[in-house]
Amino acid sequence: MAGILKKIDTPEDLRKLEKQELTQLAQELRKFIIDIVATKEGHLGASLGVVELTIALHYIFNTPEDLLVWDVGHQAYGHKILTGRREIFETNRQLDGISGFPKRSESVFDTFGTGHSSTSISAALGMAIASALKGEKGKHHIAVIGDASIASGMAFEGLNHAGVTNANLLVILNDNAIGIDPSVGALKEYLTKARVGYKPARDNIIEALNFKYFGPVDGHDLQGLLDILDKMKAIKGPKFLHVITRKGKGLKKAEEDQVKYHAPGKFEPDTGELLKYDTEGLPLKYQDVFGLSLVELAEKNEKIIGITPAMPTGSSLKYMMKAFPERAFDVGIAEQHAVTLSAGMATQGFTVFCAIYSTFLQRAYDQLIHDVALQNLPVIFCLDRAGLVGEDGATHHGVFDISFARAIPNLMIAAPRNEVELRNLLYTAQLGLEAPLIIRYPRGRGVLKEWKLPFKRIIPGKAEKLKDGDEIAVLSIGNMASNVEKAIKKTSFQNKIAHYDMKFVKPLDEELLQVIFKEYSKIITVEDGVKNGGFGSAVLEFAASSGYKGDIEILGVPDKFIEQGSVDQLQEISGIHVEGIRKKLETMS
Amino acid sequence: MAGILKKIDTPEDLRKLEKQELTQLAQELRKFIIDIVATKEGHLGASLGVVELTIALHYIFNTPEDLLVWDVGHQAYGHKILTGRREIFETNRQLDGISGFPKRSESVFDTFGTGHSSTSISAALGMAIASALKGEKGKHHIAVIGDASIASGMAFEGLNHAGVTNANLLVILNDNAIGIDPSVGALKEYLTKARVGYKPARDNIIEALNFKYFGPVDGHDLQGLLDILDKMKAIKGPKFLHVITRKGKGLKKAEEDQVKYHAPGKFEPDTGELLKYDTEGLPLKYQDVFGLSLVELAEKNEKIIGITPAMPTGSSLKYMMKAFPERAFDVGIAEQHAVTLSAGMATQGFTVFCAIYSTFLQRAYDQLIHDVALQNLPVIFCLDRAGLVGEDGATHHGVFDISFARAIPNLMIAAPRNEVELRNLLYTAQLGLEAPLIIRYPRGRGVLKEWKLPFKRIIPGKAEKLKDGDEIAVLSIGNMASNVEKAIKKTSFQNKIAHYDMKFVKPLDEELLQVIFKEYSKIITVEDGVKNGGFGSAVLEFAASSGYKGDIEILGVPDKFIEQGSVDQLQEISGIHVEGIRKKLETMS
Repeated sequence: MAGILKKIDTPEDLRKLEKQELTQLAQELRKFIIDIVATKEGHLGASLGVVELTIALHYIFNTPEDLLVWDVGHQAYGHKILTGRREIFETNRQLDGISGFPKRSESVFDTFGTGHSSTSISAALGMAIASALKGEKGKHHIAVIGDASIASGMAFEGLNHAGVTNANLLVILNDNAIGIDPSVGALKEYLTKARVGYKPARDNIIEALNFKYFGPVDGHDLQGLLDILDKMKAIKGPKFLHVITRKGKGLKKAEEDQVKYHAPGKFEPDTGELLKYDTEGLPLKYQDVFGLSLVELAEKNEKIIGITPAMPTGSSLKYMMKAFPERAFDVGIAEQHAVTLSAGMATQGFTVFCAIYSTFLQRAYDQLIHDVALQNLPVIFCLDRAGLVGEDGATHHGVFDISFARAIPNLMIAAPRNEVELRNLLYTAQLGLEAPLIIRYPRGRGVLKEWKLPFKRIIPGKAEKLKDGDEIAVLSIGNMASNVEKAIKKTSFQNKIAHYDMKFVKPLDEELLQVIFKEYSKIITVEDGVKNGGFGSAVLEFAASSGYKGDIEILGVPDKFIEQGSVDQLQEISGIHVEGIRKKLETMS
Repeated sequence: MAGILKKIDTPEDLRKLEKQELTQLAQELRKFIIDIVATKEGHLGASLGVVELTIALHYIFNTPEDLLVWDVGHQAYGHKILTGRREIFETNRQLDGISGFPKRSESVFDTFGTGHSSTSISAALGMAIASALKGEKGKHHIAVIGDASIASGMAFEGLNHAGVTNANLLVILNDNAIGIDPSVGALKEYLTKARVGYKPARDNIIEALNFKYFGPVDGHDLQGLLDILDKMKAIKGPKFLHVITRKGKGLKKAEEDQVKYHAPGKFEPDTGELLKYDTEGLPLKYQDVFGLSLVELAEKNEKIIGITPAMPTGSSLKYMMKAFPERAFDVGIAEQHAVTLSAGMATQGFTVFCAIYSTFLQRAYDQLIHDVALQNLPVIFCLDRAGLVGEDGATHHGVFDISFARAIPNLMIAAPRNEVELRNLLYTAQLGLEAPLIIRYPRGRGVLKEWKLPFKRIIPGKAEKLKDGDEIAVLSIGNMASNVEKAIKKTSFQNKIAHYDMKFVKPLDEELLQVIFKEYSKIITVEDGVKNGGFGSAVLEFAASSGYKGDIEILGVPDKFIEQGSVDQLQEISGIHVEGIRKKLETMS
């Protein structure tokens, strides 16, 4: 490790440096991030883009007295390294390591936990109002938010409130014109005009909301950043600094392909060359099965529309956006709008596939109830990243969807156990449904070699027996079937165990359940969502109303937040990995 | 009924009138609304404010071919009356009558169901994009949205997307400077400047988002409205008309006290004089017990902060806003912001009471999980209008909260069975909690004469036995205790029935439940939320894990959307009224 960075254990050390030394520190910090992310993986581009900004903020402001909130937080690697976590940064995103996002329990410098976008302004404003109430006068409160995140409605709500307060709030717009995919929307176009020096008006949109606006400034000009931040420190009330940065800055390949280098996996640190993995023969990712199958279906069915809130790459809706640009929409980080837009289109007879990560559908819960389910509009929600997602941790697990969706009338919930089932669900959905449908599937690869089989229509609410058995019935949902199959094979009493893939959490296959209740006095349910109110709970409800008196054991995610780690590790913690299921089978037998 | 209105059965009839006749029609329509709402109750002020706009829209546009979406929809009475529902308008908000909000299943003119705010732009944009895809060229898509609703983040998301499309979308801002309570926020201040003719810039905030902006125009100048709408019809792409109206227009008292006349109850139609009800001796409303008790507590505890998203009157946070204006905040229709702002304040050691209707907390589900519960910040959510709310109907029932909240780790859920319990929960919460807490309580009046008893600390998760019995145990939550008590008294075997008020859905009083499981082979749970994943489901889960083999019957809201009606009627439909509980007791005995 080079000279300056290794001496920085806290921002106080940083603030002892001469301004001229900071440029070298920026170089070292950037190299440090690249070297570690190259081998340990993680979010790369965003943190590289804010190296100078991170240093400038901690240099000018008196953190942690002054409160700094990083929106989303995947750009906070430099912040973590400069605030006492340099030595443990290599544990980033690992089980028992540090989180890939700011986290209050991890450091006093992480003033607010983030992960989902657009919360920073509200949180920092809350802190600023709190400081004022406590009479802490000189305290600064800073929200750093990207141009994709500021376009989300929640950020507007924060700005709109802040603008009528005297809160000592500094909003820094980190404008790199890209989220994970390129930013979209009218505000983005407006900001782009500001980037190139075109000022459309005396007051701009930010000033219209009562903020004092500064910028745009070059976010890689460290001395310039220091100067403007120092100057703005003296200004009271809500203020806004527009900073232009380049995502991936300092690693040529990352600057050139910003989408790929958002979270590139392992790469060669000097050149940025991605490490080649032999994926030959591996199953496709579920997201690609979704994306490619949707294109196949859209070729024949011109009523199909695809919508994604800012996840064309992550959801693989990009395939449809390329094939049918007029029928596929990236609406930006705007889950609420995405869902109600889908509903609006559905009223006009279109078959809308709305692709949202499970964890982000939480942002549109009311719209799901009020705009879709209540009107019984047959929108199809494709929930990628359902279940435990691994290294992104607690903010990103898709474990609440079954419970929150099951409460909603009309809404069907399906979970395919493999790629072919996913395809058949998509196919069936576009043939025409009477009600809205959630299809939830996990992050990562599927389980089959042959995924592109001819489409088959399936019957909503119809389960499937995968294996006979005479003592214990295991009911699984979605990809948990695979763990269950392996677990059964590891027991010494395979013949006793029957296995059913329920396929639908709602409607439940009640006819089959009645048969199961008659034949088995021991039932185990397995799901990769929270147990509270989930699939197992649905089985319990039906069992209670049917007068079933046998044993029902529920395996699922326990009632606590699960942190980061590999999916296998986290399934183990939750007791839904192969060994956990096997043990439960042994104790029940 | 006067001359013109009675001839209007559809907007087609309206469009046959001469322009000069419309002024008289406006008078008649206004009188018609006043006369019926005066006796049947409902939302008054908003509909009176848009009488001219409603007529102008249906006159200029070719509804229902052109698609008209009313945001929130409580202002759509005139629209309903002019679109075939004049004769049944007196059934407004009643069981089996018409809904108080637009509803697709009710009329082809209700193009999108509303009730919650800020959905109209997204919905209308979806329709507009759909029309373009179908090649329907001349079709218009109109969203009418108020100034309170447009400040909500979701509306911004819709505008932000629309601004980069060529969609044939007309957004009409119905700017009356008030929602239910006066509008707040920086955007509102900006719009107010526009009202008085002050143009802060060449491009305004709407034009910055690529809309063609027109106005402000006088929303009560019918001919002026006709002219501008006719002119704007010819303009392609996203366009915006800023209309200034007066809430309550045409009824002097309603114009003078716009908050009270939002939904005034019965009144004398000519003078607007409110009918006096003898409330002497009636219990106080839960909302007032909350509002007044919070002031009491805030007097002694300076760490207490109150936050409401646009419901100072409805939640009765107005009392604290008056007593401690620096510690009580109305942030406008911005539930997402309200929750994360609360979290931000909580990080700085404040005890934040966030008052949100149950149904509107759905708008901040992700913030509840991600910003509050995950960080285990002890924010207290006071959920008014929990359970079935009556005449506001399906969009407003607070029946999902138990299920959606129960899935979230760390979050406690309490439901007081009376006013004193509510007070004690508030008191206990501000003494300091280790975790966030939801307190849910119903719309309307409590059950006690004496509510202002000395505060007592309660133990979170501790239930209470209300009545002994030796055969059946009834477990109720919140105000359902009252129905249960009455039902038990009506049975012929009162001695057999024990009654427990569980007080907390989470944490459950597991110690007591173990005792109950031992003593009773028959258990009934009663809640005024959905059965799927709710309180009863929590009991089932614990029973299953405890190996309980007795019968458990769950009473609660069934898995369908419940429409409007009186609370009693809707509880009857759900089987949780006194008689429904009594019958269940009889069948179980």
